[in-house]
Amino acid sequence: MANTMLEQIGRKARDAEIMLRGLETSVKNEVLVKAADDLRTYTDIILKANAADVARGKEKGMPEGLLDRLTLTGERIQGMAEGLYQLAKLDDPVGEVLGMKKRPNGLLIGQKRVPLGVVGIIYEARPNVTADAFGLCFKTGNAAILKGGSDAIESNQAIVACIRRSLESCGVTPDALSLITDTSRETAAAFMKLNQYVDVLIPRGGAGLIRTVVNESTIPVIETGTGNCHIYVDESADLSMAADIVTNAKTQRVGVCNACESLLVHGRAAKAFLPLLAARLARTHEVELRADERALSLLPGAVPAQPDDWGREYLDYILSVKIVDSLDEAIAHINKYNTKHSEAIITNDYAHAQKFLDEIDAAAVYVNASTRFTDGFEFGYGAEIGISTQKLHARGPMGLLALTTTKYIIYGNGQIRP
Amino acid sequence: MANTMLEQIGRKARDAEIMLRGLETSVKNEVLVKAADDLRTYTDIILKANAADVARGKEKGMPEGLLDRLTLTGERIQGMAEGLYQLAKLDDPVGEVLGMKKRPNGLLIGQKRVPLGVVGIIYEARPNVTADAFGLCFKTGNAAILKGGSDAIESNQAIVACIRRSLESCGVTPDALSLITDTSRETAAAFMKLNQYVDVLIPRGGAGLIRTVVNESTIPVIETGTGNCHIYVDESADLSMAADIVTNAKTQRVGVCNACESLLVHGRAAKAFLPLLAARLARTHEVELRADERALSLLPGAVPAQPDDWGREYLDYILSVKIVDSLDEAIAHINKYNTKHSEAIITNDYAHAQKFLDEIDAAAVYVNASTRFTDGFEFGYGAEIGISTQKLHARGPMGLLALTTTKYIIYGNGQIRP
Repeated sequence: MANTMLEQIGRKARDAEIMLRGLETSVKNEVLVKAADDLRTYTDIILKANAADVARGKEKGMPEGLLDRLTLTGERIQGMAEGLYQLAKLDDPVGEVLGMKKRPNGLLIGQKRVPLGVVGIIYEARPNVTADAFGLCFKTGNAAILKGGSDAIESNQAIVACIRRSLESCGVTPDALSLITDTSRETAAAFMKLNQYVDVLIPRGGAGLIRTVVNESTIPVIETGTGNCHIYVDESADLSMAADIVTNAKTQRVGVCNACESLLVHGRAAKAFLPLLAARLARTHEVELRADERALSLLPGAVPAQPDDWGREYLDYILSVKIVDSLDEAIAHINKYNTKHSEAIITNDYAHAQKFLDEIDAAAVYVNASTRFTDGFEFGYGAEIGISTQKLHARGPMGLLALTTTKYIIYGNGQIRP
Repeated sequence: MANTMLEQIGRKARDAEIMLRGLETSVKNEVLVKAADDLRTYTDIILKANAADVARGKEKGMPEGLLDRLTLTGERIQGMAEGLYQLAKLDDPVGEVLGMKKRPNGLLIGQKRVPLGVVGIIYEARPNVTADAFGLCFKTGNAAILKGGSDAIESNQAIVACIRRSLESCGVTPDALSLITDTSRETAAAFMKLNQYVDVLIPRGGAGLIRTVVNESTIPVIETGTGNCHIYVDESADLSMAADIVTNAKTQRVGVCNACESLLVHGRAAKAFLPLLAARLARTHEVELRADERALSLLPGAVPAQPDDWGREYLDYILSVKIVDSLDEAIAHINKYNTKHSEAIITNDYAHAQKFLDEIDAAAVYVNASTRFTDGFEFGYGAEIGISTQKLHARGPMGLLALTTTKYIIYGNGQIRP
């Protein structure tokens, strides 16, 4: 029965996608503005639905952090609307023709940017993703099928119903957005194999969710990622700059994938740098330092690091600290333990900077800047669907372009292959 | 035990990949030329290994077509060497930095083209793919792990041993190329889940192989494709040009994915066109026409099409023929039955040409040209690893660029996130 429902949603999304392909940018923007307006108009209805989810969460003893992510407020709904207004202002990437060239036989060959088609998004208990994912998919001409967590089901239903009405009132098929309301494991598993109707699947959430989707999906997946991000403080670093950058990357916001989780310090810089960093951190926020043996002697407040600390994404006020004796050792350590997200070197040595940029394997590699900049807005894309840590299709912060593909268009005048 | 062997191959390929990342273009080209020279020098050894595979194939009663694909000759080995010489002459895409821009905060952000890493290739009984896949992966700085069919195992071992010696004699790690010699199903299944060591998996072969890899792999897959390619002859078409193009697309080579499998003709052009086409085909090669009811009356030699004919990739001298009454009907039919490969319209109507280009969902959409041009060499890429029919990463003919990805490199001078 679940499968019949999925089939139906899939078929409708595919039909919608065909209509969306050719939708004019002005109509897309009109819908985005209307949806934003409607979210504001119907805030009370959405808050009421959300209150039911939150009450259920509290009854179940949901942890504080999750409850916070689940909870909507008037301000948060205003933020969702703001996101859609912003999207309406961005350039529409669909329709551009890239690299059109004439071949020796007279064929004119170019690549036209087109929507991906039907985009599936699987996420957890953050109802704001619902409006956000719709906006990004719709601006790029894609139909979206959302599968949110059961904890946020009433909030998601209210938001989706609101946006589907906005679509209809602009004369666009409401099937541009659908929500899978059956939140069972079986339905999730079947959704991940709906290749006929879904072109791409994007998981948004924790490491467990992403692992499940990567392992189970037969639909191509864009893996958004966990970040075990490192900063390496080179012998030649400006130590005050290094302390500022590490403090920023660790404490400016801890629960995010581009926060720094591990610090490497060159042996000849450690004695001067580590006490300086400890003092800088102490002024900002308490951070538990988990240090290797040599660093421990320079950090009175630290605790000994365990072997599994080097591979951890804490998402907390915790930082692992290790002393290395060369740039090569730092690079080897990072390439072994990182999650291919964001890595930084702090140095004044030109050759070391270039070597680090060349040899580190990650979506974003920094010299003398905080890893916290790995973000679609900070990179100037005006929007973000996630940060890809895989190598296919998109790597690093994904803006609107990541939700498009190309097709070759070829103008001939009778060419046949000899 | 199979898993230990795979682990070992994977780990060595990962280590090799790290060395290949920074390999200079001149060294890569030297290796490619040496490998080509060695294939020519050791032709007799390779032919002897191939003869054993062919003998086994004949004993097993392997069909003629497969035997032909399996069989190597001096000329075919010369062709493999030629491919490597050509690759040595192509530009190396690795290292280019794209779109470097200064952000308002002074960060300089660009995307550097880098290898994918470790590329896995699963293929069937065509030993020439062995040298070909190595060359494409190596030129782009990737380590390659090959898994060929059991029918070609001795040929593949001989070719891989030859190339590994070439690598060593140029001072490059032979683990840039490895072959999985255990051809069991279990090992294939385990290989498709070797995410830790393999960045991308590319299946090259028939529809069954591709389906298996798409369904079983947890590694990101680039799906290369089957082609149920259509040509639509519009009311306004130059009928003589249309007959030439259909004849070319159907008969110039039948066993390939960009050959035409299905013909749609506008009702008002059918009466003049179909007899003309039948005569043109008769002069070229016998083709079985499987026609719908209306077309049947205009094609005396045709047989009735069955419902499943519209979705078939014949790879043979067979063509399905259907009469439609409008461009919209043609587009809807194609979008329903095609495999997203290559589609063509023959028309003199400007608006119809543009509408077809806009609304057909396929990797390559043609106006007034043969679908047979969908090919990396014809598109000017100088090489081809396959034709992607999926929408992520690469769509259409894939040249060297498809075997690369990018990473963001960011130059700062102390920036922290406010």
